[in-house]
Amino acid sequence: MEMNDLPAYCLATAQAAREASYQLATIDTEIKNRWLSESAIALKAAAAEIVEANQLDLAAAPGYGLTDAAIDRLRLDSSRIDAIAGALLEIAALPDPIGEVLDGFTRPGGLQIVKKRVPLGVVFFIYESRPNVTADAAAICVKSGNAVILRGGKEAIHSSRAIVNVLSRCAEQVGIPAAAVQLVQTTDRAAVGEFLGMSNLIDVTIPRGGEGLIRRVAAEATMPVIKHYDGNCHVYVDKDADISMAATIIENAKCQRMGVCNACESLLVHRDIAAKALPVIAETLSRHGIEIVADAESLSHLPGASLATEDDWSAEYLGPKISVAIVSDVMEAVKHINRYGSHHTDAIVTNQIRTAEIFTSAVDSSAVMVNASTRFNDGGVFGLGAEIGISTDKFHARGPCGMRELTTYKYIVKGDGHIRT
Amino acid sequence: MEMNDLPAYCLATAQAAREASYQLATIDTEIKNRWLSESAIALKAAAAEIVEANQLDLAAAPGYGLTDAAIDRLRLDSSRIDAIAGALLEIAALPDPIGEVLDGFTRPGGLQIVKKRVPLGVVFFIYESRPNVTADAAAICVKSGNAVILRGGKEAIHSSRAIVNVLSRCAEQVGIPAAAVQLVQTTDRAAVGEFLGMSNLIDVTIPRGGEGLIRRVAAEATMPVIKHYDGNCHVYVDKDADISMAATIIENAKCQRMGVCNACESLLVHRDIAAKALPVIAETLSRHGIEIVADAESLSHLPGASLATEDDWSAEYLGPKISVAIVSDVMEAVKHINRYGSHHTDAIVTNQIRTAEIFTSAVDSSAVMVNASTRFNDGGVFGLGAEIGISTDKFHARGPCGMRELTTYKYIVKGDGHIRT
Repeated sequence: MEMNDLPAYCLATAQAAREASYQLATIDTEIKNRWLSESAIALKAAAAEIVEANQLDLAAAPGYGLTDAAIDRLRLDSSRIDAIAGALLEIAALPDPIGEVLDGFTRPGGLQIVKKRVPLGVVFFIYESRPNVTADAAAICVKSGNAVILRGGKEAIHSSRAIVNVLSRCAEQVGIPAAAVQLVQTTDRAAVGEFLGMSNLIDVTIPRGGEGLIRRVAAEATMPVIKHYDGNCHVYVDKDADISMAATIIENAKCQRMGVCNACESLLVHRDIAAKALPVIAETLSRHGIEIVADAESLSHLPGASLATEDDWSAEYLGPKISVAIVSDVMEAVKHINRYGSHHTDAIVTNQIRTAEIFTSAVDSSAVMVNASTRFNDGGVFGLGAEIGISTDKFHARGPCGMRELTTYKYIVKGDGHIRT
Repeated sequence: MEMNDLPAYCLATAQAAREASYQLATIDTEIKNRWLSESAIALKAAAAEIVEANQLDLAAAPGYGLTDAAIDRLRLDSSRIDAIAGALLEIAALPDPIGEVLDGFTRPGGLQIVKKRVPLGVVFFIYESRPNVTADAAAICVKSGNAVILRGGKEAIHSSRAIVNVLSRCAEQVGIPAAAVQLVQTTDRAAVGEFLGMSNLIDVTIPRGGEGLIRRVAAEATMPVIKHYDGNCHVYVDKDADISMAATIIENAKCQRMGVCNACESLLVHRDIAAKALPVIAETLSRHGIEIVADAESLSHLPGASLATEDDWSAEYLGPKISVAIVSDVMEAVKHINRYGSHHTDAIVTNQIRTAEIFTSAVDSSAVMVNASTRFNDGGVFGLGAEIGISTDKFHARGPCGMRELTTYKYIVKGDGHIRT
């Protein structure tokens, strides 16, 4: 779509979202769930037109330089549309966070105070090309009472538009404002900058994508951002660890899926157990073809490894490589993790309760694992329900972010002519 | 204090705070409370030296152009030092938010997940000249497990330094790192800019002071900020209001204390009740010498009033002036409030449950009052305990902010060699 006046278009979009958000704040759970179930039906009914739109994206994909794997993720067929519809029904089945009473008290004099969970308002969601994310994000935002402005990747623009048309039409049918779900109708990058300046109309921005995009968004945004840059996750093998458990956990954390943010990138080993543990761990990793870079002291126990550089301690390899260092105790491990890590997910392997306690208290990360793989840090695995992102910040939300993390609260105070004296 | 290398000084201060924060995260409630009670004793014991330091501030005060009222607020004597010590004991008596388990579940396979409340880490607190705030803020931050960097006004620098010396010495005595409480030792304004750039070392900035300072901090800060700019609070008198209750609430909201952020600045009246209500309200306000500016329609019911300008709807007068407008229904009142208000505190006077429900749902403010004065929005009045600030943002914390608002959470996950399959 050509935009003659991009700033005016973006402003109108955000204002419509803000207006819709005020209506959404008062809409009943039943209506929101009806929207989700009607949308699930309507998406399946519109499968032919969605697939047709998807063909346009697939045709353009080679021109965008997409890999075969990326093209496959972009492709929609009726079974994938069924899956998208199924995800909407799963979100319908989750409890509505809105209206939850978080606290309440009657004050001397009879003033009644209730602290109630309410929507954040307007969410600006920036994401990559997978079209299923369009439906998921819309569902999570609207079910939690928020209007959403979706900025999808240009690679999926036709597919996303077809999906949003259905969601928006169903919204109107059940009595939710159509502007509760809006897709940015231009792929012009300047539109992102426009929205990021609107702190009065947008309550939170959630960027998902490469680190470069996320850093740009965090730097430009005038409103809060829910984000994580990377996942440099550690496993620390304590002197009191079970070595075979340690090897199994490291194997899983490093090798089960390498390209994800909760995969292990760095291994720390207590000096007293290094000579015994490192050969066992190295042997396990070598079966997966993992390259090891290590500090000078570890190298003597790791014949195939090469010397790590300072940059390795901060690196997120997202592939078959791991860094290894020896530490003298749990606090040295903690300091290393807090200094070089991403505050994402870090694990200890130990049989000592006190050591585990020190580690879990002092490691400054969204999730800290004891005798478990870093790979478990995931909203679905935790049982938190649908997830819109993950936060390595400490403000507002930390770790997996679902519907509850898209809410705030307000105090509602009821009197009977009460005045302050 | 002269600073040869301001950036290095600020960096060292923030690094010391970060180090202290990691230790503080593991310190027991009993130790933190002991620090508070020992500090209370030590402050009283050091009264003479604190008063001596205060004399230096008082001597410099006329040079800073302080008013008599401001100089009075700056003055310390033994009874005021007793009050400062008493406030520390009150904070010791409050429950420790740290360690609270917010949620927990055992997942299929036996993985145990706990969501635990933990400190934010390092707080940068910027405030004005009243020296009691130095002790209060230090107590709230450290009791909630945070290290604090205090940037007090230059007008109270000697008094604040004397107080912080005591707090810091007592910290070391009980086993809390001295750097848990640090006062910025220079009054150079550039120091604030240095700290605001350190998002890796400081977790939150809380500015208290004039709107100019707060806007500067919000614009420059690279970390989250807890703040409110102003308080343009509304009272809406519905068609189903008790007129005498409305007049009493408006009188209290406007006149009980005019210079505060939860005072009423704007009055909205339903058209159907305006002819009856406005003369009664105007009569009440006139007894307090309040100037009224009003929209054209209201003017006919308000003989002494003058015509409001567009700027009046957004104005925070903090003095004997109020703006008045007529609206056609509760949603028009809501829209006016959401457009022109500060998202701080807004009230409705009505006898209709449904109207109150619409108003409390749709007004986008930290506290919404029904048949009660706006003046009640206050952490102490709500019974939340000691307050470090108030937030009109919706992210992280909203409304009065106490110790709980200086915390975040982390997930602690315990397995027995669990791996993800």
